[in-house]
Amino acid sequence: MALNFQTLRWLGDIEGRLEMIDQRRLPGELVTLECRTPQQLYDAIRTLAVRGAPAIGVAAAYGVCLGMQTAPGQVEAALEHLDRTAAYLAESRPTAVNLFWALDRMKAAARRFVADNPGADVRRFAEVLLAEAHAICDEDKDMCKAIGEHGQRFVCEGAGLLTHCNAGALATAGQGTALSPMYEAHRLGRRFRVFVDETRPLLQGSRLTAWELTQAGIDATLICDNTAAVLMQQGKVNAVITGADRIAANGDTANKIGTFALSVLAVHHGVPFYIAAPSSTFDLSIARGDDIPIEQRSADEVAGFAGCRTAPDGMNVYNPAFDVTPVRNITAFITEKGVIERPDTDSIARHLKG
Amino acid sequence: MALNFQTLRWLGDIEGRLEMIDQRRLPGELVTLECRTPQQLYDAIRTLAVRGAPAIGVAAAYGVCLGMQTAPGQVEAALEHLDRTAAYLAESRPTAVNLFWALDRMKAAARRFVADNPGADVRRFAEVLLAEAHAICDEDKDMCKAIGEHGQRFVCEGAGLLTHCNAGALATAGQGTALSPMYEAHRLGRRFRVFVDETRPLLQGSRLTAWELTQAGIDATLICDNTAAVLMQQGKVNAVITGADRIAANGDTANKIGTFALSVLAVHHGVPFYIAAPSSTFDLSIARGDDIPIEQRSADEVAGFAGCRTAPDGMNVYNPAFDVTPVRNITAFITEKGVIERPDTDSIARHLKG
Repeated sequence: MALNFQTLRWLGDIEGRLEMIDQRRLPGELVTLECRTPQQLYDAIRTLAVRGAPAIGVAAAYGVCLGMQTAPGQVEAALEHLDRTAAYLAESRPTAVNLFWALDRMKAAARRFVADNPGADVRRFAEVLLAEAHAICDEDKDMCKAIGEHGQRFVCEGAGLLTHCNAGALATAGQGTALSPMYEAHRLGRRFRVFVDETRPLLQGSRLTAWELTQAGIDATLICDNTAAVLMQQGKVNAVITGADRIAANGDTANKIGTFALSVLAVHHGVPFYIAAPSSTFDLSIARGDDIPIEQRSADEVAGFAGCRTAPDGMNVYNPAFDVTPVRNITAFITEKGVIERPDTDSIARHLKG
Repeated sequence: MALNFQTLRWLGDIEGRLEMIDQRRLPGELVTLECRTPQQLYDAIRTLAVRGAPAIGVAAAYGVCLGMQTAPGQVEAALEHLDRTAAYLAESRPTAVNLFWALDRMKAAARRFVADNPGADVRRFAEVLLAEAHAICDEDKDMCKAIGEHGQRFVCEGAGLLTHCNAGALATAGQGTALSPMYEAHRLGRRFRVFVDETRPLLQGSRLTAWELTQAGIDATLICDNTAAVLMQQGKVNAVITGADRIAANGDTANKIGTFALSVLAVHHGVPFYIAAPSSTFDLSIARGDDIPIEQRSADEVAGFAGCRTAPDGMNVYNPAFDVTPVRNITAFITEKGVIERPDTDSIARHLKG
């Protein structure tokens, strides 16, 4: 599976910059955006130029490298500077755990380096951190591929799949999470059909998933979110596969608003419901879904579009970015390590250790 | 409950015209549109300037009167002309049974008049038909009010209600169907909150329901369709009330796409699910929901907005205008005659006869 675009790419050495597809401009235009400072990256994450939990993690790791370009020359002071950059980037989005995971990993690598190399050259420090960011990026690509290999067996010949939001190549540095099993099945020559929820309010399904599946030559059909139930009623959906933004220790899963509704509809219709996500999406510090913080976004996202108001002025709007699907509605998790069938706290803990 | 706007209004005598709120322009502008020919009315129905099953029925009845303005002077020839006008208007939307019901009623009134008054003056014929259209309009207003009176007991003090699409005053000549119980409860001084599904793709909830509830001073909160499940999960929805476009003899109900999904979510969460509709919405010629024809609408409604493409060019789109909710998911019907609890073919038949 060779995709003809690259969501994220670091250009240059430690003085380099992060190039990304500006996802706010899709599907109309394929243009890239260059981030040269942590502030530019923060804005890119906040305004969804780059989005998707794994991609945000990779971007944030490189954001730490951007911060190092203005670090003081003394390595211990540079470490403090790095911590401030990481704390700043951690504020960009509240729900995706990969963001915190990637920043923690960069901080840990920094601490190791400073402990092992007191008084070292700050250029050398920056090189080690860039290598760590590259490693996170490469592991993300490998993770995507492995999810696809483990998950392709759920994408059967002649099947109808349903996905929500975008957990594809545009959401990662590689070939995606929820879409990766589809890309692998396509590579294996299997024919199937994907129904794509448009995913209100920001239309990531319509703008991004429809775009990337079409680019790859996969048979895709766009629907309004409220139409998924009808396709299940008609027996046209054999499996639902979505990504995840954060998964609690018991398997309760935060993902794009609308995922919970799909899970209830899938259970009602006897359709298997899969979550495809890297193991870094599991947050074992959170016992249950109720404890996952949910980002509330602006009323304007729902009350208008393209500069045109679609609701009365001053209308109350409830616009959570995510919802929580209880683990009992989830048939299995697909991670880079394999598949967790009948997920619960124990099976998840075993899987993550294995 | 005095609404400060009027969805449909006939201006003048038999040479008059039909004035309507142009619902394509809401919520931005409150402007009226005047239809002076059946063709203008056909276009108004087709392009959703007027929509909502009861309002379409009333509009079509007046459309027959517009057609009479160019009828030949001989009354039997005028009757043939009327039949052609009615057949033409019947093509404007395929799903709402009220359209056919109103046209059939106008044709029956015409046949009665011609049988009783052979060789009568065609002006007198037109007056009788206009009186019939006015009667349909007045009965629609009474029907709305009666639905509100029967249904207000489901809108409890402190409750959270959820509705989909627009089955309000803008969908009728009166104070609506699904919203009428809310208007009655509001008139009785009850406080409650209404969550309004935006209703993709055409946003009738956002543009119309949010607008008219706000006009009436009712506490309304707009949500994306995919967010209703979360509100039910949080226990914030005590009842769902929607309208209907056509109801089969067994109670299976065609209504705006997304209604079926809501019904499944309501069943799953133990939330009562009510359909409020005039008895003219029941089509006893259709045994079950599977036999209700479902209008398929243009891909462009989903793939773009306000002149801006939101999906890749040439994208496949599945865009049914309606779905069918099986009667087992419906707690009760609210009609102008009362409430049908535990609806089935027998209880529905008894109710309609009673």
